[in-house]
Amino acid sequence: MKQALENPNLISLAAGFTDTPSLPVRKVQQAVDNLLGDPPQTEVLQYGTNAGRPGLRKALADRLSFADHCPEPRDPEEVLVTNGSQQALFLALSTLCDPGDIVLVESPTYFVFLENARALGLEVRSLPDTDDPEQLFQQTVTLLEDLQAKGTMARVKALYLVSYFSNPSSASRSEAEKEALAKALASCHCYPSILEDAAYRDLYYQKPWPARSILSLEAFAAFPCLYLGTTTKPFATGLKIGALHCPHQEWREKILHLKGNEDFGTANFAQAILEEVLTKGAYEDQVRKLRSLYQEKANILHHALKEVGLAKDGWHWKQPEGGLYLWLQGPSGFDASPDSPFFQKAIEEGVLFVPGSLCMASDHRKQNTVRLSFGSTSRENLKVGARRFAKAWQRLT
Amino acid sequence: MKQALENPNLISLAAGFTDTPSLPVRKVQQAVDNLLGDPPQTEVLQYGTNAGRPGLRKALADRLSFADHCPEPRDPEEVLVTNGSQQALFLALSTLCDPGDIVLVESPTYFVFLENARALGLEVRSLPDTDDPEQLFQQTVTLLEDLQAKGTMARVKALYLVSYFSNPSSASRSEAEKEALAKALASCHCYPSILEDAAYRDLYYQKPWPARSILSLEAFAAFPCLYLGTTTKPFATGLKIGALHCPHQEWREKILHLKGNEDFGTANFAQAILEEVLTKGAYEDQVRKLRSLYQEKANILHHALKEVGLAKDGWHWKQPEGGLYLWLQGPSGFDASPDSPFFQKAIEEGVLFVPGSLCMASDHRKQNTVRLSFGSTSRENLKVGARRFAKAWQRLT
Repeated sequence: MKQALENPNLISLAAGFTDTPSLPVRKVQQAVDNLLGDPPQTEVLQYGTNAGRPGLRKALADRLSFADHCPEPRDPEEVLVTNGSQQALFLALSTLCDPGDIVLVESPTYFVFLENARALGLEVRSLPDTDDPEQLFQQTVTLLEDLQAKGTMARVKALYLVSYFSNPSSASRSEAEKEALAKALASCHCYPSILEDAAYRDLYYQKPWPARSILSLEAFAAFPCLYLGTTTKPFATGLKIGALHCPHQEWREKILHLKGNEDFGTANFAQAILEEVLTKGAYEDQVRKLRSLYQEKANILHHALKEVGLAKDGWHWKQPEGGLYLWLQGPSGFDASPDSPFFQKAIEEGVLFVPGSLCMASDHRKQNTVRLSFGSTSRENLKVGARRFAKAWQRLT
Repeated sequence: MKQALENPNLISLAAGFTDTPSLPVRKVQQAVDNLLGDPPQTEVLQYGTNAGRPGLRKALADRLSFADHCPEPRDPEEVLVTNGSQQALFLALSTLCDPGDIVLVESPTYFVFLENARALGLEVRSLPDTDDPEQLFQQTVTLLEDLQAKGTMARVKALYLVSYFSNPSSASRSEAEKEALAKALASCHCYPSILEDAAYRDLYYQKPWPARSILSLEAFAAFPCLYLGTTTKPFATGLKIGALHCPHQEWREKILHLKGNEDFGTANFAQAILEEVLTKGAYEDQVRKLRSLYQEKANILHHALKEVGLAKDGWHWKQPEGGLYLWLQGPSGFDASPDSPFFQKAIEEGVLFVPGSLCMASDHRKQNTVRLSFGSTSRENLKVGARRFAKAWQRLT
């Protein structure tokens, strides 16, 4: 296995990287020239503040106002700039939870969140795996009643949603689904903090996902809410600028305090570059370009999987409408977990994927699922990767 | 007081910022052109790794080898790139200590370290305030025996040294002093991790401080050691690239794991800029320029303080030989703490300073001390600031 992993021709459909050739080289160079050319804005090379550049915070607040069709612009004070949305997640969780606390997640969910929860000693419980609002409400109430019966409901500190072109499932949540969750919680008098991770919201292919964020939904008015955005995937991963929007002042101040201890604020220069491209239009140009690029890549992978005949063997998937991932479900009872013969055979065939079970909490692990990424893989390798994946499957059956 | 703090003419001799006009605008622009010009190194805008860019880690390892006159070059694997040395400190402390553990610090020490220790629920004990190696040995043994007698020596997890042109004292440690500490610990069978913060080592004025780092001293061979460097103060604070050198594999892996949870690695683009300037000589050009600049500023402040006659009123200080700070000791019994009439009068006069007591643990607070910074203050304002400081003093006496 180790040898197979070191195969230089291994095609990775596992990495969460973005497409390298389309990174915005000229746009960043131009932004740097604007900042450092004559007369230079020398202060961009000086320390910034812990919360982030006011101009960047305003630009990010405005983007969210626009996406959510807010009648009033959102307050830039709610926005804190972070080292990618990863740091935002870490800060948010660290300020909320003590070891032994419970967090509720979707199934599947972002696997790094599960890892962070584990590192913090948290218990993770899975929300019902359904997109029907009524069932979501009922089954969430059942889950909460179960926690209530066990006397652990007071330990539920957070609910985490990846609700726009999710990593890993590429699914999005309707407003009705989000509201069903809020109502289920409220009906059980359970008011945890709600974290909405919108890392892929900008990366829709044809049209924005129509649901507004939790910050704009009345149903969440009684909950401490936090919305996570990032400019890494839609612009440049190497600049690593994320942001959190947290209208809840007390929570936000705790996060800011912890960020002060951790690093005193995100690199001012990278922030200034983002502020420049966001306010001058280069960001929007770039994300438009990426939307068609990733749509094309998603389609290539989708068609390649169809061509190799997986569908008639009982595999299911939905063609993504945004994001960087394609989520596969194998036949019921099939095992694609890291220790499975299938995973091993795939590596022998020269293709790597993320076993979907890694994206699920221990109470709800479906071993027959697979996450395929198409962000960084070339068009040709997406086709070859799909063929290798199918070959590994055929060798098993 | 609030009103006085909002005085737009307030001169701050408190901020830890660097000199803005001398920030390396052209050098950064040139580095970005080298990276993104034709043909561009597009990967610098992609995610990097958690540990940092191999080329940057090598450049930083080589700098330390050179500074320490190492017979063999240090291993770049020991180096992890961080978001400024602040993150390195946070990661190092978080991986070492549980609430209730004890850390040993100099008196005075970097006040942010004290804040981090407080946030982590640690107990802070002050090392003896002497630069005589023999006394340092004896008094450290006494301190450890005291902890032993109280049954708390096993909780001593870290010793923190700011040993090159210290923030706040501008003092440096000789090899004999460092060795005295190591011997005192060893003689009491106490083997905490040693953190050496060398943030200002590059910012010597005339010649490098001659002591090698703890990583090169035989006396520390039995201790887990970590050395903190940064490129922020000597190059550009806005790029926020720090590094830790940790030969202790187990500790380093813990730090790397925690960094993975926190942010997945420091922004690759900022790292690439530092790698470029370090390997092409622009970094060394910049730091040379800063050495004379800060020497000039230190001298201006030193002479301004002499001129206003503080010395004959019982104030003492040493002229700095590196770094960004001047450390004042007022007459014995004098109070310059944040709640003192003197602090208030200084603000009324229009000058802000850091009360030295904020840089000391609660077991060893000398209220008559003051930290003055000259990094970001203009030459003219250094003189005016000194006069205002003296006026506040005269109004009291």
